[in-house]
Amino acid sequence: MSLIVQKFGGSSVATPEKVANVAQIVADTYRAGNSVVVVVSAQGDTTDDLIQKAHEITEKPGKREMDMLLASGEQISIALLAMAIEKMHCPAVSLLGWQAGFNTNSAHGAARIKNIDTSRVRAELDNNNIVIVAGFQGLNKYDDITTLGRGGSDTSAVALAAALGADKCQIFTDVEGVYTADPRKVPNAVKLESITYDEMLELATLGAQVLNNRSVEMAKKYNVELEVLSSYTRKPGTRVLEVADMEKMLIRGVTKDTDVARISIIAVPDIPGIAFKVFSVLASKNINVDIIIQSIGRGDTKDITFTCAKEHVDTAIDAIRKNVGDLADKKIDVDTSCAKVSIVGAGMETHPGVAAKMFEALFDINCNIKMIATSEIKISVLIDADMADKAVSSIHAKFFD
Amino acid sequence: MSLIVQKFGGSSVATPEKVANVAQIVADTYRAGNSVVVVVSAQGDTTDDLIQKAHEITEKPGKREMDMLLASGEQISIALLAMAIEKMHCPAVSLLGWQAGFNTNSAHGAARIKNIDTSRVRAELDNNNIVIVAGFQGLNKYDDITTLGRGGSDTSAVALAAALGADKCQIFTDVEGVYTADPRKVPNAVKLESITYDEMLELATLGAQVLNNRSVEMAKKYNVELEVLSSYTRKPGTRVLEVADMEKMLIRGVTKDTDVARISIIAVPDIPGIAFKVFSVLASKNINVDIIIQSIGRGDTKDITFTCAKEHVDTAIDAIRKNVGDLADKKIDVDTSCAKVSIVGAGMETHPGVAAKMFEALFDINCNIKMIATSEIKISVLIDADMADKAVSSIHAKFFD
Repeated sequence: MSLIVQKFGGSSVATPEKVANVAQIVADTYRAGNSVVVVVSAQGDTTDDLIQKAHEITEKPGKREMDMLLASGEQISIALLAMAIEKMHCPAVSLLGWQAGFNTNSAHGAARIKNIDTSRVRAELDNNNIVIVAGFQGLNKYDDITTLGRGGSDTSAVALAAALGADKCQIFTDVEGVYTADPRKVPNAVKLESITYDEMLELATLGAQVLNNRSVEMAKKYNVELEVLSSYTRKPGTRVLEVADMEKMLIRGVTKDTDVARISIIAVPDIPGIAFKVFSVLASKNINVDIIIQSIGRGDTKDITFTCAKEHVDTAIDAIRKNVGDLADKKIDVDTSCAKVSIVGAGMETHPGVAAKMFEALFDINCNIKMIATSEIKISVLIDADMADKAVSSIHAKFFD
Repeated sequence: MSLIVQKFGGSSVATPEKVANVAQIVADTYRAGNSVVVVVSAQGDTTDDLIQKAHEITEKPGKREMDMLLASGEQISIALLAMAIEKMHCPAVSLLGWQAGFNTNSAHGAARIKNIDTSRVRAELDNNNIVIVAGFQGLNKYDDITTLGRGGSDTSAVALAAALGADKCQIFTDVEGVYTADPRKVPNAVKLESITYDEMLELATLGAQVLNNRSVEMAKKYNVELEVLSSYTRKPGTRVLEVADMEKMLIRGVTKDTDVARISIIAVPDIPGIAFKVFSVLASKNINVDIIIQSIGRGDTKDITFTCAKEHVDTAIDAIRKNVGDLADKKIDVDTSCAKVSIVGAGMETHPGVAAKMFEALFDINCNIKMIATSEIKISVLIDADMADKAVSSIHAKFFD
């Protein structure tokens, strides 16, 4: 008998039929003799609808109240899924984030899990119940509801799997696994049987939209075996492990991320500490900065350029202007019509030709490169958003066809 | 400085504009120097929509999961109202039932408040916050979410006012107060300046739909001064007190209740204990029984007839058949096309002509009476539902015109 954590995203529970489908998967897993904990997101567009409701009230809703509002979304989906499972004559009990013991810090809207008190979940499992847990949410030390931010349900699932010592954590989604590129855009994309945490981490960060990167980080840290699979077909998905299959594919995948904005602070005084101040201010606002480039100094100034999610642009500029005295009146350029295209693969570090091959693929389609960033297992370029899909196809063809 | 509890029903917060209107009332009360606690119901049709969602999943949703589902409704409205109040630059904090300390028993769907731990609410008030509390919900001793049943938000408000020792509890609704009859149906209906708890209790029980009767009972028990008033006009409403104004009106109001079903158990053995068994079984299912009539025995059998809310008919019959051995195979008649019309007034007990006058008004419109029940301050008749509005008008005209 195994203890399995299964996570279902919002699109998997968007309609009564889909809820029934998920209930069937869960009931089958339970009837096969497993202990089952299920983590669910809010149904379909619920979260977006709730955000819309808040914006009909006020332009700048408070973050504490926003968390109170959004947490209702999963409350609905866990109750409905528990009902659907009970209808199949399996015992189920739904638990909110706080009931399942999710203790977080107080960063409303982007809270971090501090620890999980699993006593209630374990007691329900001991009573042979299927436990349905609201993803994405927890409670801070003031007993206020917090949310983990977008994609937080993946993190909830992995964290709970780690805390419970689960045998595996299955992330059900609307694709059949992790592909070498988005199969809807690139027909030749290939499904991977397995992939390492590190590779998955790069793919997640880069917008593969299969797994939230926080959840992969956590899976790696606690060595939780993940499987990404479809809630519609009953096929094996892609396993995410410490060491993946040995067949050495040079690159694992090509991804694009269009939720990226480029911010350039122009003619910054070339004195020590400016970069430190800028990025510590951004960190204090919980803004994840991705690529950072600092031009070499021209005279006594330099330019600092970085990328972040589009939604954080206003907060980022505001925070910099207000908190970094030297920059209050500097020109700040913003480019929101860009996309980041990346290739990932543990094999590439020892193959210097990989970058050249990628740039050639971009040259083939006459695509200009705005920024370049590399790590041991990935190469990313920032290009015009309009060119993103074409660029992914061209790069994928160059490496896989 | 007073401590005021204000309660707003679902229709008062149904749209962003209405939420803003409520926020304005609350902000004005706060700016006038009062401490304000606000209790809110779910927006507009939210609760019905959620029930609908549950029924799309399963015909018989479990009660625990139903409470989990329904409690999300107030969670949305408290967050939105807090945002709207913050937009008006008043500090507000929303609290779920359990955060506000509502401890209940475990009767899911119809839970009773056991006690309220007001420490969090008091701490927020001490910090000069307006406290927005989710009505209708609480937590049982197992840390499971419970709901108080329909109209539960009124009860939440009065209970919280009692627990806090509030100076008054204002129940905002879509009518301007308590009328001698439904003003939408009876144009000559008169608004009462004040009314006693007992009279209000009869009116509430009888379907005046202004105040939930549990809330009036609680207000009477803890001597909480209530005021029923409109959230749209800024006029004084009707005060509900121990002793109302002295001007002796013979009757206070005429009401109808169409959510009533008549159940008759035919040819019950005329042996002791049958009535006891029937009504204790119904009580154990939390079914409120209203009028009870037992025919005098014919031979060795008698008929037992009672009324209850329509939604409880199936449960009631099922419970009787299963639990009262002698009745497993008896004929049970159900009539759901009836309405209860009542007159209420503390003065009527000493005026024997009142009943006659009421029956005359019914005779005037050729209305047949199915059942009659009287108490010290009310007379109720069960009639055809089709006749209910006409009956109210005829009775009202007889007493007030």
